[in-house]
Amino acid sequence: LIATPAAAQFAKAEDAVKYRQSALTVMSNHMGRLAAMAKGDKPFDAAAAKSSAQLISTMSTLPWEAFVPGSDGGNANVKGDPWKNAADFKALQERLIGETGKLVNAAGSLNSLRTQVGATGAACKACHDKYRDI
Amino acid sequence: LIATPAAAQFAKAEDAVKYRQSALTVMSNHMGRLAAMAKGDKPFDAAAAKSSAQLISTMSTLPWEAFVPGSDGGNANVKGDPWKNAADFKALQERLIGETGKLVNAAGSLNSLRTQVGATGAACKACHDKYRDI
Repeated sequence: LIATPAAAQFAKAEDAVKYRQSALTVMSNHMGRLAAMAKGDKPFDAAAAKSSAQLISTMSTLPWEAFVPGSDGGNANVKGDPWKNAADFKALQERLIGETGKLVNAAGSLNSLRTQVGATGAACKACHDKYRDI
Repeated sequence: LIATPAAAQFAKAEDAVKYRQSALTVMSNHMGRLAAMAKGDKPFDAAAAKSSAQLISTMSTLPWEAFVPGSDGGNANVKGDPWKNAADFKALQERLIGETGKLVNAAGSLNSLRTQVGATGAACKACHDKYRDI
């Protein structure tokens, strides 16, 4: 993925928007599963938690190449100009990727899962507050 | 994931539709990247091919639990009643999962990638022809 210019992976801006929203939808669904366990709404299941955590960690790396210049129209739901604030946006991506990486080991026990779901959710929110328009 | 009833992961049928379409969108985008290499539209890049193949393999397992009963309305784009034809639908899922699993090793060389992109694309198409309404 590093060898190919990001924009080359998407024929149109709307394809890039759809791709990044799809990766974020899958990530969000599995964060919801972990949050339900963390809050006690669902019974803790270490195998399911680990599987969701691994998927979240994988998904956390995907959306960013799809923020190609000009992909802020239609239903892109972007605010705060992440392109203008590229260094800040990048730092928030790295924070998320770091926290989701820790989620995989944390999924082994309910106590550590609780803590790390909180830290990961805070990383999601930090970026949404600045750059997601909903 | 096995321990929890599938329907419990989705609050509404439309959430299930959005989730499965999101997983399929990510899969389709990366199949497009591999197909571009296989056809010679993009230079072969073994590392990028392997990364896409692993992601495709992971994605290929996700959509099916989201075919919850009653999730055929709105923009679900379902035809052929996969619920009534559950055994056939399941066999097609397993074919896809098998082919995408082989894709990971096949990504190591352009020749093997070409062959396995063909076999994987045929598995996608076999299911689309019967159950995807577009």
